[in-house]
Amino acid sequence: MPEISQRGQQMPQSPIRKLAPLAEAAEARGVKIYRLNIGQPDLPSPRAALDAIRSIDRTVLEYSPSQGFLSLRQKLTGYYAKYNINLTADDIIITNGGSEAVLFAFLSCLNPGDEIIVPEPAYANYMAFAISAGAVIRTVTSTIEDGFALPPVEKFEELINPRTRAILICNPNNPTGYLYSRREMEQIRRMVKEHDLYLFSDEVYREFIYTGSPYISACHLKDIEQNVILIDSVSKRYSECGIRIGALITKNRQVQQTVLKFCQARLSPPLIGQIAAEASIDAPEEYSRDIYDEYVERRKCLVDGLNRIPGVYSPIPMGAFYTVARLPVDDAEDFCAWCLSEFQYEGCTVMMAPASGFYTTPGAGRNEVRVAYVLNIDDLRHALEVLRHALEAYNARKK
Amino acid sequence: MPEISQRGQQMPQSPIRKLAPLAEAAEARGVKIYRLNIGQPDLPSPRAALDAIRSIDRTVLEYSPSQGFLSLRQKLTGYYAKYNINLTADDIIITNGGSEAVLFAFLSCLNPGDEIIVPEPAYANYMAFAISAGAVIRTVTSTIEDGFALPPVEKFEELINPRTRAILICNPNNPTGYLYSRREMEQIRRMVKEHDLYLFSDEVYREFIYTGSPYISACHLKDIEQNVILIDSVSKRYSECGIRIGALITKNRQVQQTVLKFCQARLSPPLIGQIAAEASIDAPEEYSRDIYDEYVERRKCLVDGLNRIPGVYSPIPMGAFYTVARLPVDDAEDFCAWCLSEFQYEGCTVMMAPASGFYTTPGAGRNEVRVAYVLNIDDLRHALEVLRHALEAYNARKK
Repeated sequence: MPEISQRGQQMPQSPIRKLAPLAEAAEARGVKIYRLNIGQPDLPSPRAALDAIRSIDRTVLEYSPSQGFLSLRQKLTGYYAKYNINLTADDIIITNGGSEAVLFAFLSCLNPGDEIIVPEPAYANYMAFAISAGAVIRTVTSTIEDGFALPPVEKFEELINPRTRAILICNPNNPTGYLYSRREMEQIRRMVKEHDLYLFSDEVYREFIYTGSPYISACHLKDIEQNVILIDSVSKRYSECGIRIGALITKNRQVQQTVLKFCQARLSPPLIGQIAAEASIDAPEEYSRDIYDEYVERRKCLVDGLNRIPGVYSPIPMGAFYTVARLPVDDAEDFCAWCLSEFQYEGCTVMMAPASGFYTTPGAGRNEVRVAYVLNIDDLRHALEVLRHALEAYNARKK
Repeated sequence: MPEISQRGQQMPQSPIRKLAPLAEAAEARGVKIYRLNIGQPDLPSPRAALDAIRSIDRTVLEYSPSQGFLSLRQKLTGYYAKYNINLTADDIIITNGGSEAVLFAFLSCLNPGDEIIVPEPAYANYMAFAISAGAVIRTVTSTIEDGFALPPVEKFEELINPRTRAILICNPNNPTGYLYSRREMEQIRRMVKEHDLYLFSDEVYREFIYTGSPYISACHLKDIEQNVILIDSVSKRYSECGIRIGALITKNRQVQQTVLKFCQARLSPPLIGQIAAEASIDAPEEYSRDIYDEYVERRKCLVDGLNRIPGVYSPIPMGAFYTVARLPVDDAEDFCAWCLSEFQYEGCTVMMAPASGFYTTPGAGRNEVRVAYVLNIDDLRHALEVLRHALEAYNARKK
């Protein structure tokens, strides 16, 4: 029997997936699980998107252009203009979700062995895409004590060597909810400029910023236009994770042309997803406002609730719909597994993502979890109560 | 400005895409183009698929499972059983089109530098996926003189070395329409078994077999169950290229688990495409029969018509909806470009794919083109007449 590849062996198990069998077993026992572990919004997709899908009048579901429909790309330029990001349709390539945009950015820009510096904790799948491309992720650690602010420039500089080719940020951040300040973005800009690096900037959560602080896109940064590759997705902003429509955006023509060759090899992005995404851009302002208001409330409910539990601490996330919280346990992975396998309170338990899976530094984040607030307020409140009892029972048990 | 990657530089330009700007210019001049160059069927998608899309009653277009919906995978087992391919739902992983299945097969099974032996001419994008995975395509050349039969085993054996990890076939074949015989499949089986290779078998055209010869799937071959990875797609069989639903099928659990990790990294295959694909399996038999009958007629019309043009020769393709034909020109690429840039007959011209793009051997297929029969009979007839005049004019011009 032939062997699988080394990169196949290296591919990490997602921190979320590891617990899936335990969750299945718990549900089989009749336990209700509050899923605080995933980023699947429960809020409705825009009506305009659903209507567009339902009124498709094609008879052949044919290929679309490899770079995506021109009409969608044109409409997106209007969307980005509202954020003061000035693009032409040619700067935008439509991808199979933000995921493919990350993969194609890595394949197009990085050679095997090239290094990308990423502030951790970080979205775990970046690692998977780096392994796919043979690239190496080096991390600078942001800490819960500093509220997950950008680590000092010196920490980046320590890692920069001739194989360093890129900095990758996620802003607002998954998993921490951190929003980089103007000063921090300027620090990143200077490093990118000085060392002529690519700046991969994943900004899929830009709709979800809850403070007065400005959203500084990588596309707003001066003099590094040719270095910036923006990763985007409609999954989160329109609650359309399933349609798999993302975008890779760059002003760098050589990168564009290279990415396009990878796009041509896979022929085209999803046809019906593009139709839904295009219709979504026309969703009325109330749609975004209602969604936004809902998350504002949930965030307050969750973060206040977490910090009221003895021994739990969550910084205030400024964006996205996650927070990374510290728990009064030694090993959050063990605790999360225990919640699913041995605990219930009023017939319920909680499922959270152990934060260690978002760090590459051994031992980092061992007592932290990522908590998503994609449940309605009542469920969130009860989930917090369940969590409080779980922590009490878990720590009582160990004594 | 940072450089693009070496693999980005190596990525081939698709043989079809090179001519696209000339085609655009021709259309801008008002010339009608018969597109014999692409594999986009003009025939309708099943009504059941369109109805399923139009009656979607979800309010959230959420993620689906990374391996695809269980209901779709279960229904597919019934479809494959009709071809005497016995699977469980666990053997099937749903992908973003057949394209992603090829990419994930390569990423999961091959290390950088590993070699895949492929009979050429071959589907050009295999090369792109191999470059993405850092793998190397080695080709054994099948010739138009032999009707594109499998090259002799010795030709494979000459290439086999310690880096050889796989044989890749497309059956029925794109671009030649060739269908491997039972004897040829047995030869492949023996090589795979003897050298413990993976057998990647792309069988997306199995619905389109026009001779009495049996369809021998790689899954029918004895004793190499653990070596076989079947690549499939609904694009061609249901005229649904745009929904991007394919499958990677294997009984090898280790490969399954590895592929699944790549699938989890990209989160999920398209939601609405899966709904359409599942509904398509219920399309009445008449749907497939009508489509099949149409291709039978077109094939006859095209192949007879080609062979009636002086100096043109096409073997009889046994499957798929392409043929590779030899033209009475020195350089088919030049001729194809000339057809678009300098020729018209009754306001029309033809667009064909120069076959050289399907070979890696320098000079091979220089006077050949791939012709797809995805036009209706009337258009095909006129296209053949236009081609005849084009060849006359081209050769007269050169004298």
